[in-house]
Amino acid sequence: MYIGIDLGGTNIAVGLVDKKGKILQKASTPTLRERHWSEIVKDMVIMTHKVTEAAGKNLADIKVIGIGIPGNIDNENGIVVRAANLNMTNVHIAEEFRKYIDIPVNLENDANAAAYGEYFVQDPRRDNFLMVTLGTGVGGGIVIKGKIFRGFNGAGGEIGHHVIHTDGEKCACGRRGCYETYASVTALINQTKRKMAERPDSMMHEWVKNNGAVNGFTAFDCAKKGDSAAIEVRDRYITYVAEGIVNLINIFQPETVVIGGGISYEGDTLLNPIREFVEKNEFNKQGPRTQIEVATLFNDAGIVGAAMSAKKQKFL
Amino acid sequence: MYIGIDLGGTNIAVGLVDKKGKILQKASTPTLRERHWSEIVKDMVIMTHKVTEAAGKNLADIKVIGIGIPGNIDNENGIVVRAANLNMTNVHIAEEFRKYIDIPVNLENDANAAAYGEYFVQDPRRDNFLMVTLGTGVGGGIVIKGKIFRGFNGAGGEIGHHVIHTDGEKCACGRRGCYETYASVTALINQTKRKMAERPDSMMHEWVKNNGAVNGFTAFDCAKKGDSAAIEVRDRYITYVAEGIVNLINIFQPETVVIGGGISYEGDTLLNPIREFVEKNEFNKQGPRTQIEVATLFNDAGIVGAAMSAKKQKFL
Repeated sequence: MYIGIDLGGTNIAVGLVDKKGKILQKASTPTLRERHWSEIVKDMVIMTHKVTEAAGKNLADIKVIGIGIPGNIDNENGIVVRAANLNMTNVHIAEEFRKYIDIPVNLENDANAAAYGEYFVQDPRRDNFLMVTLGTGVGGGIVIKGKIFRGFNGAGGEIGHHVIHTDGEKCACGRRGCYETYASVTALINQTKRKMAERPDSMMHEWVKNNGAVNGFTAFDCAKKGDSAAIEVRDRYITYVAEGIVNLINIFQPETVVIGGGISYEGDTLLNPIREFVEKNEFNKQGPRTQIEVATLFNDAGIVGAAMSAKKQKFL
Repeated sequence: MYIGIDLGGTNIAVGLVDKKGKILQKASTPTLRERHWSEIVKDMVIMTHKVTEAAGKNLADIKVIGIGIPGNIDNENGIVVRAANLNMTNVHIAEEFRKYIDIPVNLENDANAAAYGEYFVQDPRRDNFLMVTLGTGVGGGIVIKGKIFRGFNGAGGEIGHHVIHTDGEKCACGRRGCYETYASVTALINQTKRKMAERPDSMMHEWVKNNGAVNGFTAFDCAKKGDSAAIEVRDRYITYVAEGIVNLINIFQPETVVIGGGISYEGDTLLNPIREFVEKNEFNKQGPRTQIEVATLFNDAGIVGAAMSAKKQKFL
């Protein structure tokens, strides 16, 4: 049995996971990220005890503990090099955790962990796997021959920060035109708002009145009802998403690309035009082609991925 | 000892290479690509005999033969899946070669082979290596933990075909705005010509009279002499090159990026502004950073890379 911990900026989610990646028990508690990191570790320890006991197991049943963290990780030494959202710089999380529970600990970047979780449950025999998560930003994780790809310094896989439009939209990273400034849900919301300002006749205004605020579903919902402004927003957004996916396919030729994040609930509405765009635009036209799917674990990807990557990777 | 063959659209270059990647003997002959592929194989066989004998060696000294080919390769089965420039589709090159010389043969994509050659001679202890070749197009090769990265179907590593400018310049691959439409030497020549049309006062007109035609050095040469139009072309071109390199660093975090192709003769004129741009723009600002260098093997990269990758990889 394994413990998977998804340490986010808002919540700490902890799960007891079996060897097939099934969550047997889970619980969460607020991160309260302003406090000292050692307090956060204590809560992770407490939650580990809690889910283990709730499942009628004990710590002797736990082989490894995996922790997914939004930041740059030194996996080999169990150190968070930098996690801006958690105010952590060079923090020895694994060592601190083991003061309380002496079970091997593996730290993993959260996007890598989520990708590994999806990879593990979708089909771990696949040679080469890429996950694109469309959320506040665009995150990514790459699995090559069953191993998480991190780059030489652990900071690789930042697929949201490849420019798809030189001199385009301003990105938080300092550049202009990054993939995430076009393909994130934040970007979709901006694109929706701009179109609404242009088109006072659009059904999207009514939608917002009924639903409180513009979100990632505004354009998708209204497009389904035939609103032309919404269709324009949706189709343009999907083209941006697909443009980046073709870029990544030309570079990686993964066997599978999985799209995660809330917008992936759209399923075929999102997938079919992306598949068509890829079919038409990818560089390679011979031999086997990349499959494009939506994620299946949703919010559990972090827990499952942290646990299953800890099962396979090195740990402290 | 090893044989490295660089099978290009114009010439077949064959070299006898020692285990350190040093070429002991080399020779070349025209490809004459219109003829049947079996004739091309015969010439590769003849050249193999020739360089081996010229070096005072014999075939018993040869461990493996590596062939670099511009196309999509099925490395495992020694098949050229598709090489458009050589009119080859599903051609069993390795098997055919072994009818004449019964020594293991390894086929490799030419850009992968060149990257592996540079990797091998620069520092094979490096974890993770990326080569960007600025030529007629933009080619690339990726070495991850000492192995050539090919993607699940052998068609990976097409870094020249990632869009850096959505809806930008038309690319031969069918898309718009691919990296190679901005960063190849072909692109630089187009950028130079456009600027010359705009600026009849530019020194570049005189340069072309003296040198016959616009080429990749026109803007670089005249920029060195202070021509403002040439400086604009050069600086903008370097920014495009660097934009793509930052994209690739954010994704791969390679320990080293090597820039190859004729333009890499510019050395620090090219490297220093790229290094500055990367330093300023890359996503990761912590820990060890990617080194950026120019290629050292130039035209020999194909031979050395084909030989050294055959030494390490699987072969038929």
